[in-house]
Amino acid sequence: MSQPELRPCAKPVEKGSVPLLPRDGLQNESAVVATAAKIALVEALAEAGGTRIEVGAFVSPKWVPQMADTAEVFAGLTRRAGVRYSALVPNLKGLERAIDCGVTEVAVFAAASETFSKKNINQTIDESLANYADVASLAHANNILVRGYLSTCFGCPFEGDVAVSRVETLTARLLDLGVFEVAVSDTIGVAHPGQVRSVLDTLCARFSPDQLALHFHDTRGTALANVLASLDYGMHTFDSSPGGLGGCPYAPGATGNLATEDLIYMLDGLGVATGIDLAKVTAASLAIEPVIGHALPSRYVNAVRSRRAQ
Amino acid sequence: MSQPELRPCAKPVEKGSVPLLPRDGLQNESAVVATAAKIALVEALAEAGGTRIEVGAFVSPKWVPQMADTAEVFAGLTRRAGVRYSALVPNLKGLERAIDCGVTEVAVFAAASETFSKKNINQTIDESLANYADVASLAHANNILVRGYLSTCFGCPFEGDVAVSRVETLTARLLDLGVFEVAVSDTIGVAHPGQVRSVLDTLCARFSPDQLALHFHDTRGTALANVLASLDYGMHTFDSSPGGLGGCPYAPGATGNLATEDLIYMLDGLGVATGIDLAKVTAASLAIEPVIGHALPSRYVNAVRSRRAQ
Repeated sequence: MSQPELRPCAKPVEKGSVPLLPRDGLQNESAVVATAAKIALVEALAEAGGTRIEVGAFVSPKWVPQMADTAEVFAGLTRRAGVRYSALVPNLKGLERAIDCGVTEVAVFAAASETFSKKNINQTIDESLANYADVASLAHANNILVRGYLSTCFGCPFEGDVAVSRVETLTARLLDLGVFEVAVSDTIGVAHPGQVRSVLDTLCARFSPDQLALHFHDTRGTALANVLASLDYGMHTFDSSPGGLGGCPYAPGATGNLATEDLIYMLDGLGVATGIDLAKVTAASLAIEPVIGHALPSRYVNAVRSRRAQ
Repeated sequence: MSQPELRPCAKPVEKGSVPLLPRDGLQNESAVVATAAKIALVEALAEAGGTRIEVGAFVSPKWVPQMADTAEVFAGLTRRAGVRYSALVPNLKGLERAIDCGVTEVAVFAAASETFSKKNINQTIDESLANYADVASLAHANNILVRGYLSTCFGCPFEGDVAVSRVETLTARLLDLGVFEVAVSDTIGVAHPGQVRSVLDTLCARFSPDQLALHFHDTRGTALANVLASLDYGMHTFDSSPGGLGGCPYAPGATGNLATEDLIYMLDGLGVATGIDLAKVTAASLAIEPVIGHALPSRYVNAVRSRRAQ
């Protein structure tokens, strides 16, 4: 049975941290989103109380054209005190571009599956970690925080099941590089609460919840249930994207991030304080819909839209 | 804090019961669904392993035209051993129609909110319970099982909050009528796990999980998380509709039932046996999509559809 008799953490989580990822969302939209619209979205998310916002990625525009204007987005932002604006960087070149833009937090992305690593970033896991060691070293020398994503922790589109021991080992290796937090990621949205408990039974025996975040996609509708299961382990940092940006509900391959609104609605109800204003973040998401050209998948945003239409 | 230090039920649920509600779904679709398509859906759900199927409703066709052919649907079914086919009945007249069709299980629907009761069935709660007492009496005399729905247990569209004490009292009054189970229902899809725990703290102190079912709508994306929270209380009966039928994700007022597929995907992952085959129920849902004229809201069904389109 996957439901343990007793959960390892009985103390209720009172305070949550919700990194907002317009980057992950926009990167997976087919529409070209104008720089001004991206800036407006980031500003609206900060206005809604977001204190961690992943703005863009300093990656090759040939690979990810949606992120080509990340430098311009950073240049256009009015940075607020207390808000951490971050960017994804794949290598030293990306980090140097981030430094030029005055970015104070970056993220690197490793995979728990060898095949996914090769297909996604054309490096073995070992090669990617050697690369990220260099990135982390230069970043830290420049007083820049580094986050580590670990993708395919709950399953790989090519290899299928991923051993929890691999997730544990790679989380440790990323932390050894000096990343402040590993985002344990369900890249393809297959995780269910039984699996989340199984993975966290292992990870929480070795790492503190302060060193971990959970990154769920709502592909099979389980993302919120996964968050609920994680709270029992004292986990308190959950990634999301506004409106579930990045996953058109009826587009092939749609695998939207957990929607910020769905997450905040549940956390508010559980008494987990995040500082994010549900109405304001909903307004931010609704404002981006005409830009991306389709309705966002967030159930909560849909409920608000439906009420307005009545 | 809404998260209690210890949950009242630590014993894992090993076996779940999943009443399938094509009735609740089809009744909320704008498309007129042909009798043959309804029969095919019910047969497919039984073929998928469904053992409790709410087929239709013996209500006034003036009020609910989608259910006008319920007698024909029952007449067209090849009833299988081990499958319970039920129908909603609002009064003695409806029950008599059900008896004429050889129905062996019916459901009555009361509300926890006075205003909702008046608006939905034009009776006070007391009037409805007096009416259902007559229904239950005649049903039991005919060896027919009676289920009781209790709507708006987590919130009312007119009155807002609904006191848990009302839910408790009305659950007891329904059970006193001899209903075998009360479906504690989140009619408007506002429930979150904190609230579910609060309601179940009260209900499970007085009633056995065998006397209760949970009926969630996924309007705000919390339905699966609510199920997960409920399992901690030993709850094991969860309503759903195939594909989340009844809620077009972008239609005004859409409030689809929890999708059977999303529920089964999670319960399978938790090791809760339901006897329902996920692939077969998904196929049944996909087959009804052309009939209702839009994509079903189930996240799991959407993931399957996306994979096929790739």
